[in-house]
Amino acid sequence: MTEYKIALVGFGGVNRALAQLIAERNEDWKNALGFTLKIVGVTDLFLGSLINRQGLDAASLAALPVTKGALANLPGGDAVARTEAVIKDSGADIIAEATFTNPVDGEPATTFCRWALENGQHVVTTNKGPIALHGAALKALAQRNHVAFEYEGSVMSGTPVIRLARQLLAGSSINSFEGILNGTSNFVLTRMENGLGFTEAVEQAQALGYAEADPTADVEGHDVRLKVVILANELLDASLTVSDVRCNGISALTLEDIDQARQNNARWKLIGAATRHADGSVSASVEPRLLGNDHPLSSIGGATNAVSFSSDLIGTVTVSGPGAGRTETAFALLSDIISLHQSAAQGRE
Amino acid sequence: MTEYKIALVGFGGVNRALAQLIAERNEDWKNALGFTLKIVGVTDLFLGSLINRQGLDAASLAALPVTKGALANLPGGDAVARTEAVIKDSGADIIAEATFTNPVDGEPATTFCRWALENGQHVVTTNKGPIALHGAALKALAQRNHVAFEYEGSVMSGTPVIRLARQLLAGSSINSFEGILNGTSNFVLTRMENGLGFTEAVEQAQALGYAEADPTADVEGHDVRLKVVILANELLDASLTVSDVRCNGISALTLEDIDQARQNNARWKLIGAATRHADGSVSASVEPRLLGNDHPLSSIGGATNAVSFSSDLIGTVTVSGPGAGRTETAFALLSDIISLHQSAAQGRE
Repeated sequence: MTEYKIALVGFGGVNRALAQLIAERNEDWKNALGFTLKIVGVTDLFLGSLINRQGLDAASLAALPVTKGALANLPGGDAVARTEAVIKDSGADIIAEATFTNPVDGEPATTFCRWALENGQHVVTTNKGPIALHGAALKALAQRNHVAFEYEGSVMSGTPVIRLARQLLAGSSINSFEGILNGTSNFVLTRMENGLGFTEAVEQAQALGYAEADPTADVEGHDVRLKVVILANELLDASLTVSDVRCNGISALTLEDIDQARQNNARWKLIGAATRHADGSVSASVEPRLLGNDHPLSSIGGATNAVSFSSDLIGTVTVSGPGAGRTETAFALLSDIISLHQSAAQGRE
Repeated sequence: MTEYKIALVGFGGVNRALAQLIAERNEDWKNALGFTLKIVGVTDLFLGSLINRQGLDAASLAALPVTKGALANLPGGDAVARTEAVIKDSGADIIAEATFTNPVDGEPATTFCRWALENGQHVVTTNKGPIALHGAALKALAQRNHVAFEYEGSVMSGTPVIRLARQLLAGSSINSFEGILNGTSNFVLTRMENGLGFTEAVEQAQALGYAEADPTADVEGHDVRLKVVILANELLDASLTVSDVRCNGISALTLEDIDQARQNNARWKLIGAATRHADGSVSASVEPRLLGNDHPLSSIGGATNAVSFSSDLIGTVTVSGPGAGRTETAFALLSDIISLHQSAAQGRE
């Protein structure tokens, strides 16, 4: 049985949900998964930081009040986020990186990942920024340091997408994919089908906690574009940057467009897609597409996400599931740890 | 690099497609998958049998005429299916079992699997019979003999279902599933939505090669029932037998039923489902269900299959894809071999 020491970088909803799972399930994981997790460090820009190489109480962390510098109230805690120390000096085997996505340069998360990988620590992350903007460099760094770098949660939270395509479709070459990769915009389109105007639908998404105060990244396709870059580079052997992806959002769609689609037994969906061409080049786009009602993505409603992969031997395989949620995204981190645990077993051969 | 010697038991469309893949891709697999396959034996009730421990030419096998005793025309071949010798005396590391499904007692496929497992050979199979009727005994036998017993293709051909649930959802406890697990019946229902009567729709399915001459097993739910037993026993820790599963097919559905469903924004689908209850007991059924148009399975049309898993951490995850097809099912065998190759690497740790 293996005990992994883990440091939580960013202590918002996702890593807090992971702490809660550790508090509730660590004992079960011994038998079911072959490992347990011991939290040895936590750091968060708002909450401060805390290191204890002997292990922190996961339940107390999960219950920490959301007040500025709250970690200073725990023994040994600090009101300041000493992130570099938490990564480098906590003795952690695994860094769970779940800070905010910076779509411009992926910082500071990319630096956090780099510190850990250079230090010989596994990294699991749910952050799109480092993968979409610096994925190749970080993967190479992980390989050089013989550690795992896993990011299932960067696309569709804990719904298995990257690992499904990479592991379970291995042997069947993937040529293209198309997906509904943003829950907010899909929720808005679904609401508009029920007659709500665009602005009211966005307000409803905000009220339900799906959309940010500034919903631009969701409805203009910028969030989807990062995911398209991640999937294309991971699964189609592409080397895309964000600017390579044509991007149009849903804000220009009117109720008339939506109604006309319905009359034609079709639906507008915001689709992120990429295709590998015969010459090896890959083209990618984010745009509203009119899907017939028999298209595998047309019935994906509300905040659900889905992606269809087309490959040579098995044809089109589609997976759908939650694209967000605290526990759902924490499960992505857990699935990354399960995966690195299995790889470590293989590496010990 | 590993070379696996493989014997093909049953040489209908599926193992023939596997031979074709070996002929075309073995060299690519060296780098991409870390192994190659060498066919050392073939046996088929209709075609006869052939053993060559030095390796048979995959392309010639794939091109073998479909005539009685055809294997006797190849050097060393025999018009009789000497299946026991092909399994036990060919020196095969892996037996690819793809004979017909016998829903009554799983024979003779179960005996073929048993011979191989007792002989210390890995078994990959696409056959529902041995798994649904004797799965627990065969799994135990494989474990005692330290060999792999893989059967991804027994449910939804090469679309990853069993491995998706068992490996990628590990850590999130599955409580129930529901699926569209028979392409013929789903094709018939989809055609009936277009106004075709039941009998005509079945005839069309037969003309397209989806349905057997006797379509009873497809339209009365017996085929789905075997798959429900396989999934429930595999994923819900159940010990179901076929008679534990309530089973009703689609033959009683009328065009009026289908039309009335449409008027209520719903569709009839033949659903195989199972649920684990709080006391650990599992109930399972096959029956036509009325699904609202926003249900994740409602838009699965034609011969496509799909299954939704509900689990505690990630909620509902649905996978859809081909449920049949020669190459698609041969891919299931390939994916089983990829999996056992990875497990073998772990076992060597």
